[in-house]
Amino acid sequence: MKRFAIVGHQARTSGDFNLNDLPGSGGRMDILCRCINSSLLISHGVRDDVECYLVLAGDNRHHKTIRFSGKSVRSLSPDERSTGALIKKALSIPCGDMFRESSPGISVRQGGVKELLAEFSFAILDEKGSDIRETGHLPDSFLLSDSKNFTEDEVELMNDMPTYSVGPAVLHAEQAITVLMNEKDRRDTGWI
Amino acid sequence: MKRFAIVGHQARTSGDFNLNDLPGSGGRMDILCRCINSSLLISHGVRDDVECYLVLAGDNRHHKTIRFSGKSVRSLSPDERSTGALIKKALSIPCGDMFRESSPGISVRQGGVKELLAEFSFAILDEKGSDIRETGHLPDSFLLSDSKNFTEDEVELMNDMPTYSVGPAVLHAEQAITVLMNEKDRRDTGWI
Repeated sequence: MKRFAIVGHQARTSGDFNLNDLPGSGGRMDILCRCINSSLLISHGVRDDVECYLVLAGDNRHHKTIRFSGKSVRSLSPDERSTGALIKKALSIPCGDMFRESSPGISVRQGGVKELLAEFSFAILDEKGSDIRETGHLPDSFLLSDSKNFTEDEVELMNDMPTYSVGPAVLHAEQAITVLMNEKDRRDTGWI
Repeated sequence: MKRFAIVGHQARTSGDFNLNDLPGSGGRMDILCRCINSSLLISHGVRDDVECYLVLAGDNRHHKTIRFSGKSVRSLSPDERSTGALIKKALSIPCGDMFRESSPGISVRQGGVKELLAEFSFAILDEKGSDIRETGHLPDSFLLSDSKNFTEDEVELMNDMPTYSVGPAVLHAEQAITVLMNEKDRRDTGWI
């Protein structure tokens, strides 16, 4: 299973944001919507071997995490607004420490990066890392930040995690995911 | 100058579409908005050596083309809705056969693929082409289709144009642009 986790440092943790203003009222929720698209969708299909975790960290005290599973998600469209509506729905149901399904293949729980890093072994996708093309074995799971840098607390949790870069330009999170998936597609199918 | 042109086969040519329904009322305008993002934007910056042409072909008789110039565009945000608003504005002004500016760096004219192909030498970005990584010299200008295949009339115009592929998976137009730009970034900076 391939996994992406994207930390939305300003992202709302309640479902009361406005779908007409995903960047402002959603706390750059537009970035997270695009990351769902780039992780899970290809032309006319869903990648069923990918899970994408959105870490909503806009409320300092209560982070939430939404998981989109390519294997079981239904009715996922590439546009930001429809993905925003699915996130809004997930944030509108009560949840505890365990994932609770809000729509087919989409689940939500309390907790953020700390809980996720305790469960899976992530690598960091960041411009300062090693070139993915020059790496013998690419990890399965990658952690990315939205438009903000990782916080000091997050960096502390990420101690010793390997860091990879997709290229010389500093890309948006969703663009970096697209480039990484292209590298993985090539390796998985023997194109390179 | 690098150029991308994306044909929106159902895309509205008048500015009366609803920003709350870019896929439906805009005729998959969401795809074209994402292509502007992937062509022109990187993290905290605009690519000033790229022009992106949106060919709006939803009205069979009167196509329109909108040009976004990285060099002079202002206030371009990555979210679909704000780009949709810039497109809506461009489509709301009268225009003829020459580009007319609707916002800084954004211009519109009558005409579609035929006119564009007469001006610049494009290559096709399509899953059936040669691998971009295996190509000695990559062209500067690429033509892509939205979620529909090119029409027979378009294919006829594209006779003898070289065709390139970005990888084994069939990607969305904006994803293919991101992968291609990564390859160009690597070559331009000597990463590979």
